[in-house]
Amino acid sequence: MKYIKISISDKVAVVELDRQTKLNAFTRDMWREMRDALTTINRDAGVRAVVLVGNGRVFTSGVDVKDAMAAMDSISGKAKADVDGDALQKSIQIRAYIEEFQEAITAIEKCAVPVIAALHGQVVGLGVDIACACDIRYAARSTRFSVKEVDLGLAGTLQRLPRITGNDGLVRELAYTGRVFGAAEALQMGFLSGVSSASTRMSAFHMAMYTATAIAEKSPVAVMSTKKILAYSRDHSVAEGLAYTAQHNSVALQSGDVEVAVRGMREGRKGVYRDSRL
Amino acid sequence: MKYIKISISDKVAVVELDRQTKLNAFTRDMWREMRDALTTINRDAGVRAVVLVGNGRVFTSGVDVKDAMAAMDSISGKAKADVDGDALQKSIQIRAYIEEFQEAITAIEKCAVPVIAALHGQVVGLGVDIACACDIRYAARSTRFSVKEVDLGLAGTLQRLPRITGNDGLVRELAYTGRVFGAAEALQMGFLSGVSSASTRMSAFHMAMYTATAIAEKSPVAVMSTKKILAYSRDHSVAEGLAYTAQHNSVALQSGDVEVAVRGMREGRKGVYRDSRL
Amino acid sequence: MKYIKISISDKVAVVELDRQTKLNAFTRDMWREMRDALTTINRDAGVRAVVLVGNGRVFTSGVDVKDAMAAMDSISGKAKADVDGDALQKSIQIRAYIEEFQEAITAIEKCAVPVIAALHGQVVGLGVDIACACDIRYAARSTRFSVKEVDLGLAGTLQRLPRITGNDGLVRELAYTGRVFGAAEALQMGFLSGVSSASTRMSAFHMAMYTATAIAEKSPVAVMSTKKILAYSRDHSVAEGLAYTAQHNSVALQSGDVEVAVRGMREGRKGVYRDSRL
Amino acid sequence: MKYIKISISDKVAVVELDRQTKLNAFTRDMWREMRDALTTINRDAGVRAVVLVGNGRVFTSGVDVKDAMAAMDSISGKAKADVDGDALQKSIQIRAYIEEFQEAITAIEKCAVPVIAALHGQVVGLGVDIACACDIRYAARSTRFSVKEVDLGLAGTLQRLPRITGNDGLVRELAYTGRVFGAAEALQMGFLSGVSSASTRMSAFHMAMYTATAIAEKSPVAVMSTKKILAYSRDHSVAEGLAYTAQHNSVALQSGDVEVAVRGMREGRKGVYRDSRL
Amino acid sequence: MKYIKISISDKVAVVELDRQTKLNAFTRDMWREMRDALTTINRDAGVRAVVLVGNGRVFTSGVDVKDAMAAMDSISGKAKADVDGDALQKSIQIRAYIEEFQEAITAIEKCAVPVIAALHGQVVGLGVDIACACDIRYAARSTRFSVKEVDLGLAGTLQRLPRITGNDGLVRELAYTGRVFGAAEALQMGFLSGVSSASTRMSAFHMAMYTATAIAEKSPVAVMSTKKILAYSRDHSVAEGLAYTAQHNSVALQSGDVEVAVRGMREGRKGVYRDSRL
Amino acid sequence: MKYIKISISDKVAVVELDRQTKLNAFTRDMWREMRDALTTINRDAGVRAVVLVGNGRVFTSGVDVKDAMAAMDSISGKAKADVDGDALQKSIQIRAYIEEFQEAITAIEKCAVPVIAALHGQVVGLGVDIACACDIRYAARSTRFSVKEVDLGLAGTLQRLPRITGNDGLVRELAYTGRVFGAAEALQMGFLSGVSSASTRMSAFHMAMYTATAIAEKSPVAVMSTKKILAYSRDHSVAEGLAYTAQHNSVALQSGDVEVAVRGMREGRKGVYRDSRL
Repeated sequence: MKYIKISISDKVAVVELDRQTKLNAFTRDMWREMRDALTTINRDAGVRAVVLVGNGRVFTSGVDVKDAMAAMDSISGKAKADVDGDALQKSIQIRAYIEEFQEAITAIEKCAVPVIAALHGQVVGLGVDIACACDIRYAARSTRFSVKEVDLGLAGTLQRLPRITGNDGLVRELAYTGRVFGAAEALQMGFLSGVSSASTRMSAFHMAMYTATAIAEKSPVAVMSTKKILAYSRDHSVAEGLAYTAQHNSVALQSGDVEVAVRGMREGRKGVYRDSRL
Repeated sequence: MKYIKISISDKVAVVELDRQTKLNAFTRDMWREMRDALTTINRDAGVRAVVLVGNGRVFTSGVDVKDAMAAMDSISGKAKADVDGDALQKSIQIRAYIEEFQEAITAIEKCAVPVIAALHGQVVGLGVDIACACDIRYAARSTRFSVKEVDLGLAGTLQRLPRITGNDGLVRELAYTGRVFGAAEALQMGFLSGVSSASTRMSAFHMAMYTATAIAEKSPVAVMSTKKILAYSRDHSVAEGLAYTAQHNSVALQSGDVEVAVRGMREGRKGVYRDSRL
Repeated sequence: MKYIKISISDKVAVVELDRQTKLNAFTRDMWREMRDALTTINRDAGVRAVVLVGNGRVFTSGVDVKDAMAAMDSISGKAKADVDGDALQKSIQIRAYIEEFQEAITAIEKCAVPVIAALHGQVVGLGVDIACACDIRYAARSTRFSVKEVDLGLAGTLQRLPRITGNDGLVRELAYTGRVFGAAEALQMGFLSGVSSASTRMSAFHMAMYTATAIAEKSPVAVMSTKKILAYSRDHSVAEGLAYTAQHNSVALQSGDVEVAVRGMREGRKGVYRDSRL
Repeated sequence: MKYIKISISDKVAVVELDRQTKLNAFTRDMWREMRDALTTINRDAGVRAVVLVGNGRVFTSGVDVKDAMAAMDSISGKAKADVDGDALQKSIQIRAYIEEFQEAITAIEKCAVPVIAALHGQVVGLGVDIACACDIRYAARSTRFSVKEVDLGLAGTLQRLPRITGNDGLVRELAYTGRVFGAAEALQMGFLSGVSSASTRMSAFHMAMYTATAIAEKSPVAVMSTKKILAYSRDHSVAEGLAYTAQHNSVALQSGDVEVAVRGMREGRKGVYRDSRL
Repeated sequence: MKYIKISISDKVAVVELDRQTKLNAFTRDMWREMRDALTTINRDAGVRAVVLVGNGRVFTSGVDVKDAMAAMDSISGKAKADVDGDALQKSIQIRAYIEEFQEAITAIEKCAVPVIAALHGQVVGLGVDIACACDIRYAARSTRFSVKEVDLGLAGTLQRLPRITGNDGLVRELAYTGRVFGAAEALQMGFLSGVSSASTRMSAFHMAMYTATAIAEKSPVAVMSTKKILAYSRDHSVAEGLAYTAQHNSVALQSGDVEVAVRGMREGRKGVYRDSRL
Repeated sequence: MKYIKISISDKVAVVELDRQTKLNAFTRDMWREMRDALTTINRDAGVRAVVLVGNGRVFTSGVDVKDAMAAMDSISGKAKADVDGDALQKSIQIRAYIEEFQEAITAIEKCAVPVIAALHGQVVGLGVDIACACDIRYAARSTRFSVKEVDLGLAGTLQRLPRITGNDGLVRELAYTGRVFGAAEALQMGFLSGVSSASTRMSAFHMAMYTATAIAEKSPVAVMSTKKILAYSRDHSVAEGLAYTAQHNSVALQSGDVEVAVRGMREGRKGVYRDSRL
């Protein structure tokens, strides 16, 4: 991979966005790599938590506008070369482009273990979408955020942000105006779970690693079950969520992890859990 | 119109509640006018944002109890005059009354462009419902709010408030007790996006106008697409929301606004967008 | 009942968890009693609000692990005694155990009138679930909370917490790590509606009683309608919620409570409402 | 009205499609008239059933292709005249055109009382959609049907047909190929509730009138409640349908119609019901 | 029990409606007994199929109108005795009455094993509802059916009939007119799975017993899983149904029944399965 | 590919099941090949319809029991080899196995163009599932069907069959008993769209090819839009289906196919459409 770096140690995988000369702006190649990175990690039962971080000065400045415009031009070009070059054909190709892009972001959500974002510098447009697909978000004190899509004349994918912050009015203000907001406001609205006291990339990274390490010591079955149940419950009624939990736990309670956990609790020491994937 | 005033300038429409002698209490005629005002504005592609404000001492003291009681009496009267005057007939007429009322509020939500509430003085009962149907809410420092329906022996229409604040416990406390709360608490719970430092009607109005003006300079296609996608996503699963966004954007990206936006960005100046309606 | 005490006065029922020697840890018998207590109260139209409180040093330390392990062993034993002792049979029995447990908690939600939690000391695991099923939560200043299930190697029933706090990232952090959090953080995230200035059990209890008493003076039809509409709206689209409200209110407005409320309002004194159940 | 005729007698309204020189092909004006006709009838509590029939040689030959093409050309023309004439603008106008068309058909479904189609000659494209929105369909023996949209290069609105016939494979065959099918096959698949022994328009009309008259003698509350419950239940789970029915009937049973019906039953004669609208 | 008889032999339970002097018309006591009968059977893992049959001349003539009117009068009486006797109180009591009635019917659907209806003579009103909650329906040749509720001035509970027959037009015709239809038409529309060549009660009973016996020899896990999956799938999308099936089968395939079935298949003889309940 | 053969001519792809020595019983390798075959075809815009047929004496005898048992044994073996070999691990692996299997069948449904099944000989278990995922089904006169899963002690994936036949009672009878049914009954219940007069494989194949060829001459945009709209509408309410259709058609009507179709209609000859994919 060219733009994404993966390193794994002590059961925590670190995924680095690494296109520093362009402020980690996302090209099509780059989000494909991100999707592949997450998919690879998801297959490795040895990984129990993931930290996502940007190398260089910022987390990401968002989509690489030049690359995106080239893609749009290519779609228009293909359509025009066509005898019957029509709006439907164009829309089909644009849709495929968008879906691939959504799929790369959703790969974070589909990762069986928690993904924790360590944010710094700028988190713009697509960057906010990526952060929203993560389970937990920490940021350096000076990080600046923007739901920037409105300034490109388009609507971002705003499915997750309202569910994360539970503040509909603010989400609308940010999305309609594209105004910049800081880490303090992001914390206050619930977008962040913590802000580091320093402005450096490493300060946010350490917060993320701290939580990732704590998670990595817990029962993988318990952690992955929790992620699965939360994902299901978000999109179903409370009654359906309860039924799903009962069905899931009726088998999960037959896992070895429960035994390990209870023994550990009795003996007053941490349980050592087997690696696994749900 | 008698109780509602509309003025449009610089692509922002201002809708004023104007029944000052009665603290802008809503009669049936008044909410019909509000519905018509929003419908009219929605047809005018030249309007890109709306500010809703109350004239006089308060935003609104809620429903006009005398007018509502007269309506109920008339329904009962009609039912009694009837040979078989029965509870079903009465309920059908009450339901029609309620639905008309809901429709007037929903007209705010159905307006293609953002509607911003500038609140001051009192925002009571129906006033909270109206504010909830707006996209963004600002208030003067001394504004006092109350989910007052419980004191009329009935349940308000509580669909939107929990989704806006994301604080279920507080919503219940307010709705069960009808207790008064101030702007600071309303800000803290996410009901407001900002509180002005003064207590005057104008201080809230200026906050609303500031945001409305900022929105009016953005791409109308982007802003309206955002409102549409947020409305759809609120009531669907994340996966369905993403599919809807992909389908919508596959056409919206063929709009002239994207071109204007990107050109503006390259040339370092604001784009000038065409008026339109989605 | 052995572990649950009920007392009713001035239309407020107080339900006490009373297994003090075990820090109110829940056995199967105890949650059955809690379910029965709520069911009994629900049938008594004279009760207009409920306060749930723990006796002794803490609200509850969660599930009684010894009791739960005995239940699991008994299930395994039965399965092994079986000629064909299989995973399906075991899962069916575990599921029945979980469902009974969920049902006890849901009994709080199904109670027609508001249930208010007065929390102190510790609120752990199952205790958080119970608190989430209540309408409103108050806590003493020093109360310590923990979504502890992860340390038992299993996933809790996380349907209600995200809907109450509207802060998805924090919910995940708490559920993945099981870390302890205090009353101040719980208030900030919207889990609590208030924190008492003292650390005592009574300080939280008085806050709860204050609100319960206020609710008990309101129209029961209005309060119960509000609870019913909020429950329905949580699991349906805004449009469906509005339709439900219109249908419900078309009959509820034919109740005697509206008349009492309006007369009281006109005459400047509190209405005296009839006891009832929806 | 120019293309639609309404006559009412003995509580049954007859709506005639009357553009005989063009085989009742639908122009925009004509479906607007049909929508208005149904809306008018729906407001008249004296009408208890509706029969929809086509004058002349056929029920309808479908959409008037010339009129539709003119509409499309006008949309394209407007778009081209535009400086930034774009695919989004065009799609917005096409969508408005389609929605108006759908609304005319849905007006049949929204009519509070049953609408019965009397079909003869041809029932093509849009004609099948219209018939599907009716409650019950009868046809003359020689009637020929076709889901013709595929031959215009587009997909019809296929929401209702699969729910009516319960035969997914056949619906697909008809929609993919546009092949003609006769009344016998239509009866067999459940699209029709009856086929007359003759081929004349009047033979189908009499079947429809027979059922309409039978319905007009029944309790209007019962008939309208049935239509409402069926519509709700089609789009909800069985459990939600049952809850809706219980809520609806808890008021409907307080209607005068029940008393009339039971008295009639006891006295061995038909009850005389009051006109009403739900 | 007074009106319901249960007998069990060879793993098939037979439930008899037995109020012959009143043509098995259902009183409140009788449907409570039916609910209890099904609940009792559901707890007996030895029962693998149920046959429901009416003793005497008919399956059932529907609700006992006298008993129902007495219940309504008692509700009205209670309401009138009340100082504030109002439509809401009345509707709450009627609703409780309806829900109890629905619950008795739903007990058939909730029975873990298939319930097969053997119909003869008349199946009227409530009788059709009961038959619809059964898994499979057989009838004697001369049986006469009627969706009779319209003649009582009310709407039946029409959730299940359209899903069983897949013929929306016919269901509406029957429900709007209450007309009588015979076994041949019921077979043709898919309401029945078979019609006996004779008109006697026993001829239908034998058809039902034949199928019940065949089911009783199959794997109980397979049969109960099938019933559960069909119930879930009816009310969910295909994708959700598939996910549910995968989750269910991932445990069900660990049951002893699969082993028994495969061994039996290999050895060319019927497997002998253990009694169980899902 | 070893077990699946593909041939394409005149825009129709023929997919042959070809494991004749084993009566086309499906192994894991075979359904993977089927999935890949459909995926490949779906990418080839030149294909406008697919016919699925079995080579040799039967369409398919269902799952290859030996292969399935080996898979289950391997899963058990892996689980046992494990130190903590537990029911959860086993269920995770079984679930992955089932999901892969479901995915192969769903590949038929996801194919953009219609897939038509030509059935003969036997169609057992998995074969019924495969046929249900096809758009249209034809069969030779002597074909024998069976929903056989019950005889393996498990529940089949019964999502699609009830939606295809609209006959709930019959589906249950077939699934609970596993009894064999013939082509005539399958036609009557709506599972088949046609039965050939002969018993040969070729007689069904020709029926399928006739329809496939007819479809291949139609507008691909219209045919694929129809398939897409039907799939969406099956799982959504009528109102949501109508909204989806309006949105889809607002772009599809800007396709070249409409122009070709209308010109062809005017000139009285078949339109020649461009190959495409939605």
